[in-house]
Amino acid sequence: MNFQLAGRWNLRIFEEDNMTLSGELTGNVVITGKQGLGELHGTSFYGRPKGETLELSLTESAYLIYIKKITVKCAEEELDFERFFIRASNIIKNFELFYIVYKDLRERGYYIQPSDIGFRVYPRGGHPGKGPAEFLVFVTSERIPLLLSGLKKHLDNSDNKKKRLILAIVDEESDITHYEVRKLIPSGSSVQKPKKLHSVVTLLEDRCMVWHPEESKMLHKEGFFGKPIDEGHLQLSLVESCYLMNSGVMEIEKRDHEKLDFAEFSDIATRIESDFMLKYKVYEKLRYSGLVPKTGFKFGTHFRVYKSFDSISHSDYLVHAISHDHIFSLQQVSRAVRLANSVKKEMIYAVVSDSIEFIILGRVRL
Amino acid sequence: MNFQLAGRWNLRIFEEDNMTLSGELTGNVVITGKQGLGELHGTSFYGRPKGETLELSLTESAYLIYIKKITVKCAEEELDFERFFIRASNIIKNFELFYIVYKDLRERGYYIQPSDIGFRVYPRGGHPGKGPAEFLVFVTSERIPLLLSGLKKHLDNSDNKKKRLILAIVDEESDITHYEVRKLIPSGSSVQKPKKLHSVVTLLEDRCMVWHPEESKMLHKEGFFGKPIDEGHLQLSLVESCYLMNSGVMEIEKRDHEKLDFAEFSDIATRIESDFMLKYKVYEKLRYSGLVPKTGFKFGTHFRVYKSFDSISHSDYLVHAISHDHIFSLQQVSRAVRLANSVKKEMIYAVVSDSIEFIILGRVRL
Repeated sequence: MNFQLAGRWNLRIFEEDNMTLSGELTGNVVITGKQGLGELHGTSFYGRPKGETLELSLTESAYLIYIKKITVKCAEEELDFERFFIRASNIIKNFELFYIVYKDLRERGYYIQPSDIGFRVYPRGGHPGKGPAEFLVFVTSERIPLLLSGLKKHLDNSDNKKKRLILAIVDEESDITHYEVRKLIPSGSSVQKPKKLHSVVTLLEDRCMVWHPEESKMLHKEGFFGKPIDEGHLQLSLVESCYLMNSGVMEIEKRDHEKLDFAEFSDIATRIESDFMLKYKVYEKLRYSGLVPKTGFKFGTHFRVYKSFDSISHSDYLVHAISHDHIFSLQQVSRAVRLANSVKKEMIYAVVSDSIEFIILGRVRL
Repeated sequence: MNFQLAGRWNLRIFEEDNMTLSGELTGNVVITGKQGLGELHGTSFYGRPKGETLELSLTESAYLIYIKKITVKCAEEELDFERFFIRASNIIKNFELFYIVYKDLRERGYYIQPSDIGFRVYPRGGHPGKGPAEFLVFVTSERIPLLLSGLKKHLDNSDNKKKRLILAIVDEESDITHYEVRKLIPSGSSVQKPKKLHSVVTLLEDRCMVWHPEESKMLHKEGFFGKPIDEGHLQLSLVESCYLMNSGVMEIEKRDHEKLDFAEFSDIATRIESDFMLKYKVYEKLRYSGLVPKTGFKFGTHFRVYKSFDSISHSDYLVHAISHDHIFSLQQVSRAVRLANSVKKEMIYAVVSDSIEFIILGRVRL
């Protein structure tokens, strides 16, 4: 939606360029002389001083060429914006992504330095030499699959450095969406365990049925388990049933009255939904943490989760279980987070390995 | 969210049963005598008359047992609700889904007859013998993958019968979501074609760059193509670039100035996104139909689509391209439709085969 921009397009292009400094493209940096040190770094925090000279990244340089603060030569040939940009994009893969994100942040008043994964960004009011950077910004394209293992590395890294980790995702039309990624230990206040049932529960096709009216009522009222399908019978989902059986609350039998143990039940459930055990482990962890998980089907995730029994009219989280070798499609992440936020919930990924870690992803406006 | 229900649970169960009729389970139907014809069919439109008797489906019968209108015997043994239900779920796969959907519709005042795919449902105020059914309701579980080919068959079938096709999807906790499925021929009012560019456009990593300020401006203003990344340069997505090249508006070269033709460009684009041609065909079709497609990344779909240039502040549709052999995950459909509706857009699937057909899915409250 950049129609407003169109009117301003020619403003800067014909600005006077009496401030122009010259730099030299050397490898993957641009070096300017002493004047650059004062004018570019001293007042505007571009680049990094190297002795008497200033070293600029290719992103900084492209931006400084664009705003006519520098001209850049390479082996006596002057590179205009187009030629410099093509040269830079031959040196740095996805250079255009870095340029788009850099320009956007810079023009909205942030001071920026390069980092391994993209940029270190200073808080509003801060700059290099005045307090630490606040954000580590990881720049990527919507099309590049994101390995969970890589994301966790960035997250550990930014935690160690006491910075906030931001994903800057550039879409195919060069729009940027920023997500903040954090670790989280969710907990709630629902701790009671239902009384043991006397009646036996039947596994039907892909859900279980509690036939006894009073016990149906008790399970639903005291733990928000299942869904009453009429005024006497309660249907339980596979994860709910497995949890209640595993907690010793009830026994499950097949339609032919054969009793099922945990291993048999989870075998059947895994044939019905292949990621059953992944879901089950997360369900159990959430229940142990005092939370109330219910199906997230309507939101396209495994669970919607209530922090307490009293807040049962609005769930707080959407939780999706993933394995430690998960690869995110950013299109799917985008849809999940957007949907969660549109219904005032937070989107959490539950990473299942030996233990379970929770990662929260939320859209932020930097 | 059925806490209110809990209080009403015992109301019906102890109702007087002086109306109880008896039926006999025979194969996959229940047969009642002449009295059923009058009391069950004549006044309440249950079942189908067969001569002097009334034939009830297993779903109808289970419901009638539950509300104590009938008792059912099989070989002299009386089947209570639990035994009848287990028996029925051994005869009909996913019987519980049909029961849940039937009960819900019936108790909200609809008259229902069985059909191949689930139910024929009469409009409010209508019933068997008074006008035709309005809906064909296809009953399924969130877990069952839905073949596009199957969905199209149901759609053709309901079109032929002049009925509205409804998907009733039962989730793992027995909640029902209804979707209406329709065919659609979307069209818009944006028909102009941009003037031919003099400058050449460069393919960078996964997008193209227009370097010429005036031509950048023209493309963006006159066709809402691309995104201005600064006040002089326009980035075009792969589909936009391919469309503009194919329409003769511009030429594209690589960073080494080698020109690309349509086949070469689409080869490269397909290496970047494997479903490029699928997307491209839909993009082209939408543009030819006077619509303005832009990336739908933020919504997790291929495109967001504007009906006209004047309405560019709000897009009308989210469009996702799928091939004719697509298999829907209902979890994904649920997320897509919910997200689309939450931002006041309609969710459309564009089915690519020799031609392109559009199918719209929207949540409905029956």
